[in-house]
Amino acid sequence: MQIAPIPTLSKEINDIRLRTADIVGNRIIPNEGVIYSGGDKSAKLRKEIREEVKKQGLWAPHLPEEYGGMGNGFLTHAYMNEILAWSPLGNRLFGVIAPNSGNQKILVKYGTDEQKEKWLIPLINQEMESGFSMTEPDAPGSDPRSLQTTAVKDGDEWVINGHKIMTSNGRRADFLVVMCRTEDDDDDSGNANMKMTQIIVPTDSPGLERVRSVPIWGHTGGDHMEIKYKDVRVPLENALGARGSGHQAAQDRLGAGRVYHCMNTIGQMWRAFDIMVRYSTEREVHGGKLETKQFIQGFIADSYIDIQAARLMTIHCAEVMDKDGDSRVDISAIKVFVPEAGSRVVDRAIQMHGWRGVSSDLPLAGMFQGFRTLRLADGPDEVHRILIAKEILKKYHDGLSWDFGV
Amino acid sequence: MQIAPIPTLSKEINDIRLRTADIVGNRIIPNEGVIYSGGDKSAKLRKEIREEVKKQGLWAPHLPEEYGGMGNGFLTHAYMNEILAWSPLGNRLFGVIAPNSGNQKILVKYGTDEQKEKWLIPLINQEMESGFSMTEPDAPGSDPRSLQTTAVKDGDEWVINGHKIMTSNGRRADFLVVMCRTEDDDDDSGNANMKMTQIIVPTDSPGLERVRSVPIWGHTGGDHMEIKYKDVRVPLENALGARGSGHQAAQDRLGAGRVYHCMNTIGQMWRAFDIMVRYSTEREVHGGKLETKQFIQGFIADSYIDIQAARLMTIHCAEVMDKDGDSRVDISAIKVFVPEAGSRVVDRAIQMHGWRGVSSDLPLAGMFQGFRTLRLADGPDEVHRILIAKEILKKYHDGLSWDFGV
Amino acid sequence: MQIAPIPTLSKEINDIRLRTADIVGNRIIPNEGVIYSGGDKSAKLRKEIREEVKKQGLWAPHLPEEYGGMGNGFLTHAYMNEILAWSPLGNRLFGVIAPNSGNQKILVKYGTDEQKEKWLIPLINQEMESGFSMTEPDAPGSDPRSLQTTAVKDGDEWVINGHKIMTSNGRRADFLVVMCRTEDDDDDSGNANMKMTQIIVPTDSPGLERVRSVPIWGHTGGDHMEIKYKDVRVPLENALGARGSGHQAAQDRLGAGRVYHCMNTIGQMWRAFDIMVRYSTEREVHGGKLETKQFIQGFIADSYIDIQAARLMTIHCAEVMDKDGDSRVDISAIKVFVPEAGSRVVDRAIQMHGWRGVSSDLPLAGMFQGFRTLRLADGPDEVHRILIAKEILKKYHDGLSWDFGV
Amino acid sequence: MQIAPIPTLSKEINDIRLRTADIVGNRIIPNEGVIYSGGDKSAKLRKEIREEVKKQGLWAPHLPEEYGGMGNGFLTHAYMNEILAWSPLGNRLFGVIAPNSGNQKILVKYGTDEQKEKWLIPLINQEMESGFSMTEPDAPGSDPRSLQTTAVKDGDEWVINGHKIMTSNGRRADFLVVMCRTEDDDDDSGNANMKMTQIIVPTDSPGLERVRSVPIWGHTGGDHMEIKYKDVRVPLENALGARGSGHQAAQDRLGAGRVYHCMNTIGQMWRAFDIMVRYSTEREVHGGKLETKQFIQGFIADSYIDIQAARLMTIHCAEVMDKDGDSRVDISAIKVFVPEAGSRVVDRAIQMHGWRGVSSDLPLAGMFQGFRTLRLADGPDEVHRILIAKEILKKYHDGLSWDFGV
Repeated sequence: MQIAPIPTLSKEINDIRLRTADIVGNRIIPNEGVIYSGGDKSAKLRKEIREEVKKQGLWAPHLPEEYGGMGNGFLTHAYMNEILAWSPLGNRLFGVIAPNSGNQKILVKYGTDEQKEKWLIPLINQEMESGFSMTEPDAPGSDPRSLQTTAVKDGDEWVINGHKIMTSNGRRADFLVVMCRTEDDDDDSGNANMKMTQIIVPTDSPGLERVRSVPIWGHTGGDHMEIKYKDVRVPLENALGARGSGHQAAQDRLGAGRVYHCMNTIGQMWRAFDIMVRYSTEREVHGGKLETKQFIQGFIADSYIDIQAARLMTIHCAEVMDKDGDSRVDISAIKVFVPEAGSRVVDRAIQMHGWRGVSSDLPLAGMFQGFRTLRLADGPDEVHRILIAKEILKKYHDGLSWDFGV
Repeated sequence: MQIAPIPTLSKEINDIRLRTADIVGNRIIPNEGVIYSGGDKSAKLRKEIREEVKKQGLWAPHLPEEYGGMGNGFLTHAYMNEILAWSPLGNRLFGVIAPNSGNQKILVKYGTDEQKEKWLIPLINQEMESGFSMTEPDAPGSDPRSLQTTAVKDGDEWVINGHKIMTSNGRRADFLVVMCRTEDDDDDSGNANMKMTQIIVPTDSPGLERVRSVPIWGHTGGDHMEIKYKDVRVPLENALGARGSGHQAAQDRLGAGRVYHCMNTIGQMWRAFDIMVRYSTEREVHGGKLETKQFIQGFIADSYIDIQAARLMTIHCAEVMDKDGDSRVDISAIKVFVPEAGSRVVDRAIQMHGWRGVSSDLPLAGMFQGFRTLRLADGPDEVHRILIAKEILKKYHDGLSWDFGV
Repeated sequence: MQIAPIPTLSKEINDIRLRTADIVGNRIIPNEGVIYSGGDKSAKLRKEIREEVKKQGLWAPHLPEEYGGMGNGFLTHAYMNEILAWSPLGNRLFGVIAPNSGNQKILVKYGTDEQKEKWLIPLINQEMESGFSMTEPDAPGSDPRSLQTTAVKDGDEWVINGHKIMTSNGRRADFLVVMCRTEDDDDDSGNANMKMTQIIVPTDSPGLERVRSVPIWGHTGGDHMEIKYKDVRVPLENALGARGSGHQAAQDRLGAGRVYHCMNTIGQMWRAFDIMVRYSTEREVHGGKLETKQFIQGFIADSYIDIQAARLMTIHCAEVMDKDGDSRVDISAIKVFVPEAGSRVVDRAIQMHGWRGVSSDLPLAGMFQGFRTLRLADGPDEVHRILIAKEILKKYHDGLSWDFGV
Repeated sequence: MQIAPIPTLSKEINDIRLRTADIVGNRIIPNEGVIYSGGDKSAKLRKEIREEVKKQGLWAPHLPEEYGGMGNGFLTHAYMNEILAWSPLGNRLFGVIAPNSGNQKILVKYGTDEQKEKWLIPLINQEMESGFSMTEPDAPGSDPRSLQTTAVKDGDEWVINGHKIMTSNGRRADFLVVMCRTEDDDDDSGNANMKMTQIIVPTDSPGLERVRSVPIWGHTGGDHMEIKYKDVRVPLENALGARGSGHQAAQDRLGAGRVYHCMNTIGQMWRAFDIMVRYSTEREVHGGKLETKQFIQGFIADSYIDIQAARLMTIHCAEVMDKDGDSRVDISAIKVFVPEAGSRVVDRAIQMHGWRGVSSDLPLAGMFQGFRTLRLADGPDEVHRILIAKEILKKYHDGLSWDFGV
């Protein structure tokens, strides 16, 4: 997979894109099999690639320079993600390992100096693993304020009780960032958004029980843990940011996260597209290459349209965010549009490949499951469609018609 | 899940439907967890259910009475399948265990007395397991005549060489029914359809190598084996039916199989529908039950429409087949329509359930994968759409317009 | 266009189908141009066809035998409609001229002997024209009980005041059946459904003002009139049925009407299909007939599937109604599904024909507009989807799961 | 309808956008009824608006400054079109009157000084009307090189013979630009693209017969004329550009035209969106405003997404063209995507409005027909999908993978 400079982009962004593409396209993708197979050869290669990434100044695109990262603006990082995601290994080999990366950003923004030293630095140095523990089995994921896990002050400790599910990286994590309801002692602000606080909880704390790894699409890799907190005690200083800042912090994480997710999705769409087009030029069926069949040509054209619509909307959104514009409607719009477009593209790639398409011989089946999951994660699409409508209706009720263009 | 008699059906079919529903709805579904968990309790329960099934005269709906089955016509079996498939365990506990069941039907139709005794009876008695070995990695699945595996006569033996993939039940099977090209000795008929023969191959034959279980949707349960045949020798009497009958036998298997698959799909759609509607009456979100939200009401209504369209088309097809009508167009039509409709229904059920929808806590994720696979199995949808068009165009070229109604 | 007997239908229905198809396919369709062009030749031909229809015993399939009709059951009439609608002229030449036909049925069911003599017989003899005046500009069409036009008793007269729109056949009608609110004198039943009465209003009544023919799709043929009623007086005996029966009478009209509309839609789909397939065998483009292109083959196959799904659902619905089953869910289901399926089929036919497709040289543009209109007429699709969901949810709340099959 | 500056645009473009929006939003849209009703009041108002447009320097955005136009680049004109098309009267009152505007551009680019004086200047001064005569009844519109109308040199004249259909503005035009095959005397280049020439033909030429105005969607306004040319003679100097330049000139016209069409479509989508959102805040149904219903919120959200995707793709395309990038794939992509997106948006607006939606009381029905027509005009969507695929496949065959970003 090769790319050229985009004439409408700055030299700086084009430069980063080309160098990133060189590593992902020439070093990672041709060696995915080796890297997945593990063992010494894999470890050696991964080390070499990480060194090359660092040498090229492309390490940790999500972190500020003071923490060893690229110090990118939003748009630049978005353009990088589109390329990193060509390979499921891309982000990881460039130092962006979810959910650690999200926790790193939260710690950079909300952490005290002590917290940074204790949790952020080891996380960046890959000496620790972390997870994010928000969703609960009995609360609709679309309404974070309905969460029931509580943290109550007792002396100089928080006492945490609750039941979480889908805790990311829950099996390997050394600590979890846990979303807790902390309203119930001396707060009476009445602001529902001010009732939640994120608290750092080491996973070896007494009372923390890993119930099970919820099988998602039949897989139990430990990424989605069910966890019970029974009188789990952590020091007061483990609160991340001010008491009541948890909802805002989650919005920070999820809002920006959605744009990155979308660019990651688009990177995967390009990969599926590349696999699809390439195969169509190779596979012979019923007296001709697949590429000569109109159905297949339709698959290719419609996929190009899906990708181009998805990426232009996402890039536009990143551009508005970089200029501090109001991007709420457009973030919800890409949250809805991009995973659906991704599902269509990968569905076509699968269909062309027959059994190969749903086997692990290609990365398509994984994309198909991942895109489906995205449609219900981070607030289901329906909630985001309602948000879009309400935001637009508000403008009309304020006597304005929709002020399009932003 | 409860059903009532359908006024437009015969008393006999209604009777079978109600008794089947009673067992699946009241004995199997409430105990799926227990049965899946294995162990003595599971074994005991399964035994009880199988005995009840036999007592009710509902065992082996796919087999003639002389082999202990129900001796059903097409339509009756189709109506039963719609109910058996409410539970992933339904068919199995009623004695229909794929791919053994398909092999049983082929043996009943094509087997010699010796073959029946040696392979069919142990299969029915569950003393043996079997598989079906047709697809090859380098031949488009949509064109069985492009298969390359050969069987050459040598003395009183067939010598088989070839490379198969997606061989069902390949890990556990005691024998495989292998589709082989047998044209190349004394046959010159020039009839491309006459070049294939199905041959019974014991899996302990020297030269038969189980390469791997192809991971489908990431699962390696042994259902989809890659198998190499290198100078594998079996007696001439292992050929199933006359030399050259393989293509027709496969069509028999796949044609009728498609109708059963569709009714199985519809049974699963009803299950997803039941899960969806029930949950909508229980789950509280944002100040109201899910059932009070228009988006959810839309999910329910559209799913009902999808199911009703799918089942009426499939039943119509079964009815035509029972009357020996020409059902080729309609079989291809349901092959295309039903898995797509199923995908839509289960997609809505998943969406309503959030993370639960893609977890193994519900049978929805498995259905979603299965329905997606169906769209590329048994000839991809595109091939069937071309078949429909060509069949219709042929009528017009014969000076008739389309003779609708059949 | 030719058809054959359907093996699953009775001899009687097949017979009617074949004889109907013979007239529509061989007498009407080949002569549509002549008939539309008007003049003596057209009048003569129409007369001949009507006589042939009567001779074959196929006149007025919607009327009882005592009024010169066929006395059909529901299912038979549905099967006839599928064929009559091949041509926009079919129903008309078989004596079914909307909205007169709907008014005839209402008069048969609700009319007194005097009303029948005065209004029904001239209507049947085509000596009079009539219209139906229900929709109002400021009431949602989906809620007939929100209508505001009133009829107040004054001595032996009704005094009618109100504002109607979309009054069918409003320009040519000699009388209108007007839906009026009649609750406001001595009725206190509290039954919202008992507040409406249908009243026969001659169009030459003082105070009745034909405001305009609302241009629908740009056409102002007089089919959709805006009409104001200002102190319009008619005798009390002009009420159709008992006071308060208007809502039920409208439901009778609309419920059965939806099934006929759907079969009419299906007849048009078959016509569009026939036009599409035939053209594909004739039109040469880019080095081949259209029929050889996969895109076109896809159009044909998908259209067949759409038609088959639509007609099997509609026929099933008619069959249930003939057996007095509860058909509310299925009527709403076809109300939603069939016009959408019709839109897809005719859209493909249009696309294949280029400019011809949207010109009046073919009947496709008219179908496209008509099917679009159907989606918002008789209650918009959204209202019917909610009805389906609520009906299903009610079953679940009653402790039953959905009792499928009816 | 009000707009604000877009932060990512230049001050110049924003300025033009705001001033254009002021006239269209405040002078034209509130007075559409008056303007359409004709008469003195309409004429006076139209004159005032045109003067205001000229005063603001917004006249003739499609023409160079030397011909009294704005001298816009591509992107600027595209952004203006998005606003002009809010009203069906916008372009016209800003001096862009199709097909005259297209002929003006062709004359500017290809015309000799004499041709400009004789045809262009009167066209700009609205002293003449013109049309474009390319499509033929028996040639697929998607292949301009299949056209059969010939122009043969005879002395100092062209003798034209042929049969055209869908000739725009054919009834009122003083002259037509006619696409003719001119290969057949002394040309042997073998270049199929070099065989066509556009020739100016006055409509009062002997032998030119206006057969009929083809009824499109039932309308016969004279926009789509069927015209026969029988030995029509015009001077040699009426050829537009060099002999054989006709195909390229048509591509110029259609390529740029597609981008303008798309921005016009997007302007109409914004209008439909505005009508939809506004109505949802006003219309009361079943106990609540439409805006409170999830189905309606879904309509609004999905429409916003459709519009945003369509406009970002189109703007991107205009930007690439302004930079002389290769825009063929993206032009075909918007040709396919934008009218489909437009159809979805206006379909939702219609559905919300019931009968009003398909009446001439709102501009929606016209948009719905127009967008449908766009899908088959300028090459049907299927041809553009094939073009996209072939262009992409060519890159792969050249050893490159798709060079995305342009």
